[in-house]
Amino acid sequence: MKSPRAYLDHNASAPLLPEARAAMIAALDLTANPSSVHHEGREARRIVEAARRDVAALCNAKPEHVVFTSGASEAAALVLTPNWKMGRASLTYSRLYVAETDHSIVVGGGRFPAEQVVFLPVDAMGIVDLAALEAALAAHDKAEGLPLVAVHLANNESGVIQPAARIARIVHDAGGVFVLDAVQAGGRISLDVSELCADFLILAAHKIGGPKGAGALIGTSDVLMPAAIAAGGGQERGHRAGTENYAAIAGFGVAARRARENVARAGDLEQRRERIVAILREIAPDVTIFGEATHRLPNTVFFSIPGVKAETLLIALDLAGVAVSAGSACSSGKVGASRVLKAMGFGDTVSGVRVSVGHETKGSEIEQFAIALHDFMKRRSRAA
Amino acid sequence: MKSPRAYLDHNASAPLLPEARAAMIAALDLTANPSSVHHEGREARRIVEAARRDVAALCNAKPEHVVFTSGASEAAALVLTPNWKMGRASLTYSRLYVAETDHSIVVGGGRFPAEQVVFLPVDAMGIVDLAALEAALAAHDKAEGLPLVAVHLANNESGVIQPAARIARIVHDAGGVFVLDAVQAGGRISLDVSELCADFLILAAHKIGGPKGAGALIGTSDVLMPAAIAAGGGQERGHRAGTENYAAIAGFGVAARRARENVARAGDLEQRRERIVAILREIAPDVTIFGEATHRLPNTVFFSIPGVKAETLLIALDLAGVAVSAGSACSSGKVGASRVLKAMGFGDTVSGVRVSVGHETKGSEIEQFAIALHDFMKRRSRAA
Repeated sequence: MKSPRAYLDHNASAPLLPEARAAMIAALDLTANPSSVHHEGREARRIVEAARRDVAALCNAKPEHVVFTSGASEAAALVLTPNWKMGRASLTYSRLYVAETDHSIVVGGGRFPAEQVVFLPVDAMGIVDLAALEAALAAHDKAEGLPLVAVHLANNESGVIQPAARIARIVHDAGGVFVLDAVQAGGRISLDVSELCADFLILAAHKIGGPKGAGALIGTSDVLMPAAIAAGGGQERGHRAGTENYAAIAGFGVAARRARENVARAGDLEQRRERIVAILREIAPDVTIFGEATHRLPNTVFFSIPGVKAETLLIALDLAGVAVSAGSACSSGKVGASRVLKAMGFGDTVSGVRVSVGHETKGSEIEQFAIALHDFMKRRSRAA
Repeated sequence: MKSPRAYLDHNASAPLLPEARAAMIAALDLTANPSSVHHEGREARRIVEAARRDVAALCNAKPEHVVFTSGASEAAALVLTPNWKMGRASLTYSRLYVAETDHSIVVGGGRFPAEQVVFLPVDAMGIVDLAALEAALAAHDKAEGLPLVAVHLANNESGVIQPAARIARIVHDAGGVFVLDAVQAGGRISLDVSELCADFLILAAHKIGGPKGAGALIGTSDVLMPAAIAAGGGQERGHRAGTENYAAIAGFGVAARRARENVARAGDLEQRRERIVAILREIAPDVTIFGEATHRLPNTVFFSIPGVKAETLLIALDLAGVAVSAGSACSSGKVGASRVLKAMGFGDTVSGVRVSVGHETKGSEIEQFAIALHDFMKRRSRAA
């Protein structure tokens, strides 16, 4: 008999919510192009606009400030650019400041040439060094262009949460634009754009229980916008060409509604997280839980056990039916040292294992992880 | 009782094939990130690679030359750029030559600045003026960079088919790269990239019975590739960052398989097209069928009836349950004069009505169009 799988890798991709699935399938069964003027086209348009209101509501933003994209990577490519428009005028952002622990879609610099990307250090908890940010922006030469700062709200590997509003104040005092990569935060903590004081948020549907294929760049004004990636159709008010993927967008809208409700239920996630931490401490007392001393996502545990390679543990757990991750999944499928841990001062060789859960995660899945980890450690001590 | 709708707007978006729908739903029910190394991740990866083989086979291309994107617009944005890589070396394409009747994703010029886009005239049938192309490329200053030429294989409004291999020879003789926008041609005529002699093909899943949210740029070599839109994850061999939308890609793969088979069944489409032409000639003997004297897609009729505004007819048909289009759907939903017809020499004010069908189109849908058109013309002659 094939044993059931325990999927504890929600930060890589969360399961599609049943109601998002249903909304998608209903939308798949409508044949139309949302730009068509006939009945079918108008129905598709209605789906897109309803979802736009739901995604806006998740962030306490205005629907007209939501630009749907094919995902967070495209939203990052759209907003991380030197070329901006203020009404009809052109504006240049000459430097992109990113945290060393940002996701690769931000660290990559989007459409900025590599030499215009400046890296901001983080402390041992992974929090952006605010003094370093202030110093970098003080040294910024505004004659060349304005500063753009992009930081994640919650780290994809450690779950550590940045002090967004404090970063925002420093950026705004320096006349810069502040982009917040909120991909991992949706449904786990509040995404209220006014509280976060961000100028732009980046979201991905598939991290909050929606489907792959939808993301958004959410702004706070109509005035200042990044130049479109390419000219083309007039979709998304000219900010993003291409026939709208309204089935994915429909699923995104439903997931956004649910994510908004879920923020109030973060305590349920936190219980699961603390159960995972307790399992780790019991089975491997010398475990390091990264970022444990700071504010973290309620669903994420990122750890390392001395003498245990992340890759080895990952494979052993996979064979035992438990899916976890060695840090970010967003590269070529290789497992190496964690860039995030290196930035946090853990050296060049440390790799962590990430366990990440959701509201759908069953207690039995977490206990399956406990058993698999226990078996692995027992085999290991026997072999030693 | 609500009367059934007749959907005769396949060029705007084709109905999702039942087998593509089933493949999508199966993929939606797998939670994973294709970059994850665990079982779930590998399953998702397998789906992507199987679809890659199917899409490659549709074009007689190699799977490793298929770059999946979120759609044709993104594929156009990727390939229409001045910045290219040949291995590790950088290469500049200094001008983009496009046909006046190209789709807006090509006419927009992708990532080329507007001043580097050169428009090629077409004849009264909409065929690219080959002498003008030769003259333009002869005048091209290679000291600034190489020429890039992008033309559609089949026109989205008229269905007129370009002589791709002849264009390719002219482009290649001039040392240029030839990009063929094959979006409207899939499943209707052959997409064999060797026969077409194109260096790159652009495809959209939702025009061939797949879902929205998937498209591809299909090349013919590993050596010369456009610079990625943004740095980020290493997906699609570094050419396209972002978690793969494997559900949409799965549907694309299935649709590509079907599209390949359907080329042999083009006669079935042609019968439907000729029935539509016969209806038009009977009800409105002074109708103009655009591009009628040349090679056209077997599924498309683009026409104008003297004294009848396209918008008026479109709305009347829509009210009678028949979805057709006034040219391209890929703009802001407005109906205006056709850019395609203007380029073909029909002046500034002519707008056409497009009826486009597929293998799923029922005879009853075409007869519903006949009745609705007949009723419209009768009311019109009474009012006159």
